[in-house]
Amino acid sequence: MSQVIEVDQLLQESRELADRAKVAARRMAIASGAAKDAWLKRSAQALIERAAEVIAANARDIAAAPGYGLTAAAIDRLTLNAKRIDEMAKGLLEVAAQADPIGEVITSSRRPNGLQVTQVRVPLGVIFMIYESRPNVTLDAAALCVKSGNAAILRGGKEAIHSNRALHRVLADELAASGLPADAVQLVPTTDRAVVGHLLRMPDKIDLAIPRGGESLIRRVVDEAKMPVLKHYQGNCHVYVDAEVDQAMAVRIVVNAKAQRPGVCNAAETLLVHRDIAATFLPRVAEALIAQGVELRGDEASRQIVPTMVAVEPSDWDTEYLEKILAIGVVDSIDAAMAHIARHSSGHTEAILTRDLVSARRFVDEVDSSAVIVNASTRFNDGGQLGLGAEIGISTDKYHARGPCGLRELTSTKWVVYGDGQIRE
Amino acid sequence: MSQVIEVDQLLQESRELADRAKVAARRMAIASGAAKDAWLKRSAQALIERAAEVIAANARDIAAAPGYGLTAAAIDRLTLNAKRIDEMAKGLLEVAAQADPIGEVITSSRRPNGLQVTQVRVPLGVIFMIYESRPNVTLDAAALCVKSGNAAILRGGKEAIHSNRALHRVLADELAASGLPADAVQLVPTTDRAVVGHLLRMPDKIDLAIPRGGESLIRRVVDEAKMPVLKHYQGNCHVYVDAEVDQAMAVRIVVNAKAQRPGVCNAAETLLVHRDIAATFLPRVAEALIAQGVELRGDEASRQIVPTMVAVEPSDWDTEYLEKILAIGVVDSIDAAMAHIARHSSGHTEAILTRDLVSARRFVDEVDSSAVIVNASTRFNDGGQLGLGAEIGISTDKYHARGPCGLRELTSTKWVVYGDGQIRE
Repeated sequence: MSQVIEVDQLLQESRELADRAKVAARRMAIASGAAKDAWLKRSAQALIERAAEVIAANARDIAAAPGYGLTAAAIDRLTLNAKRIDEMAKGLLEVAAQADPIGEVITSSRRPNGLQVTQVRVPLGVIFMIYESRPNVTLDAAALCVKSGNAAILRGGKEAIHSNRALHRVLADELAASGLPADAVQLVPTTDRAVVGHLLRMPDKIDLAIPRGGESLIRRVVDEAKMPVLKHYQGNCHVYVDAEVDQAMAVRIVVNAKAQRPGVCNAAETLLVHRDIAATFLPRVAEALIAQGVELRGDEASRQIVPTMVAVEPSDWDTEYLEKILAIGVVDSIDAAMAHIARHSSGHTEAILTRDLVSARRFVDEVDSSAVIVNASTRFNDGGQLGLGAEIGISTDKYHARGPCGLRELTSTKWVVYGDGQIRE
Repeated sequence: MSQVIEVDQLLQESRELADRAKVAARRMAIASGAAKDAWLKRSAQALIERAAEVIAANARDIAAAPGYGLTAAAIDRLTLNAKRIDEMAKGLLEVAAQADPIGEVITSSRRPNGLQVTQVRVPLGVIFMIYESRPNVTLDAAALCVKSGNAAILRGGKEAIHSNRALHRVLADELAASGLPADAVQLVPTTDRAVVGHLLRMPDKIDLAIPRGGESLIRRVVDEAKMPVLKHYQGNCHVYVDAEVDQAMAVRIVVNAKAQRPGVCNAAETLLVHRDIAATFLPRVAEALIAQGVELRGDEASRQIVPTMVAVEPSDWDTEYLEKILAIGVVDSIDAAMAHIARHSSGHTEAILTRDLVSARRFVDEVDSSAVIVNASTRFNDGGQLGLGAEIGISTDKYHARGPCGLRELTSTKWVVYGDGQIRE
């Protein structure tokens, strides 16, 4: 009986939280750019002034981290220090420096009957961020949501709860002083997982859910959410080296795509090489990759040329390693390469390295991924690198947003029509 | 036992149908505009040449209609004749005349490192249309999906199955001759409802579901779909008449918004009138509405002025009548009007009638609907009227598409990056 009451209370609190966000969103939609930028700048300043308070809260999370079984790498990502707080403050200022997306006229026309028709960019409304134990996401998400005129509900991992509460206090304390509604940025106060489920079942109050973290978190959110979810599950990215290619360039790009930062979603996981150059190219690229500590898993044709490769298993083609391992296959043609990609890619990022114009154009037209790259590293599929500014995530879906998502992807549109008495005949 | 086998077979057939659509979608993505337009023109021609075949098939549906309990209005919408087939053929030619949305460059930049970055419009992929017994939707949906480079799976109501099969035969027979894949437009062959459920659970094969019909159909699709759904549930549209207004114009617009075609989603359902003009405006507008056969349901303040009004019930404010009934309320201010709208609107279309610039600008900025209209009829929220050309539906969601949806709303984007050896440092 007491458990039933408790669950009902969580549901009730979740509803109230979402209702407050919805009321705040109506005010955020008409907030001035000046107010939003003032909040970003005041928060950056306050973050530096209150660094000690944030670091003290963070220390509680760090102390508890072994109890949660966090790995050393996870504890490192969780750790805040003066330098990282400084970077986070700079991040807020960078978002302040971006143009305000709200109010932009996207299309306009004057209709034959004199109606003046415009399609105007407006905020989405309420955005629910669900993420793991990376406190910097609290700052990034709040900054991008507020700048794009939305209200944010933030739910970070329980392992970072004290850090997130401290960071949220800093942000929230500057809202009213900047002329923004106090509920524009809310942190879910409890770490009870049930609240996430409740909120994900409120499509009338929450316009978008954004999970950031491992694939299991994302799948859980997609399964439960009744509103749209901005997400990608995996980045199983391919580099295809065509028959005609600058081999030195190709080696440089393959090494960069695989080894420069292997743990991220736009790192390459599979290398496909045209049969005509395999005998000369594979030994060169293998040597360079091995020098970077990359384990090579080749198909039979590859291993005939570089026998030190491990034999690739069928499951390798569908694996996002996120570490220094690369699957390698020899293909007979660009068609075979694109067929392999169509079958195994997660639709994130694919690159072709070629001198051949027909190959480049075919690859760009026919490969169905969020970014298709010619003669450059897959690592460029990133909001900052493509010129969008800070990104809230990368989408491999085709609906609404595809690829890196910045401020514009957190907006919707509204048709605005001015007339002087027009009626339909 | 036999039932289990049957269900499995339907699931298997649904998978194969979706797989064929997905293969066709890859070819459709690179189909030329010339091929797509050739198909639209050939289909228009074939439709007229094969009108007798279509009308004969339609006669079978009409004969069966009373058995399905269709109303006279529904039977009328189901009925095809030479004139309607002619209109449908013209509709295909109108879509052919629109610009091809695919390949449009939406944003572009050259990055500091020399990367040439473009964001290009591409098709969504596979679109699943679920609709009722209106055979014209078969034509509209196929035309818009093909023109936008998508593969279509069509599922009309069982009451129109013979008409839809005949129309689909006409369309499908022209695909190969136009150089398009034969599976670019598929009709679900069976009327078994289970197939819809199977297909709605295939987000890896189908990119978008579009239900067109009554609210119960749409809710069922949204409940079951694992892919995005383009939809609106209701059009509970409001007209607010401000204190300062050209009353003759306001009467004309209110009558048009309510009575010109009451059964459509952009017809007005509620009239809100500023208290300052209620005493003069309500009798005028009431007389004009009653002359059009509109039943008026007023709040207490309205009925003090026009006592012949029926008393409005609280549930009226949330009702999409879709007939000649209008709820009427008197409000103290534009704020009260906007608060009423925020509470009761379905986010479809709201209009303000005013001479006051501040009121107009506030209404446009603060009302959160797919279209916000100043001094014109709500009936203008329509793809053709706003200049989009033919529409596949109207969305009251904010994600991806909002308001009338034409060719562009059936597309996604792809980032295309050309470099000459760039790597990330």
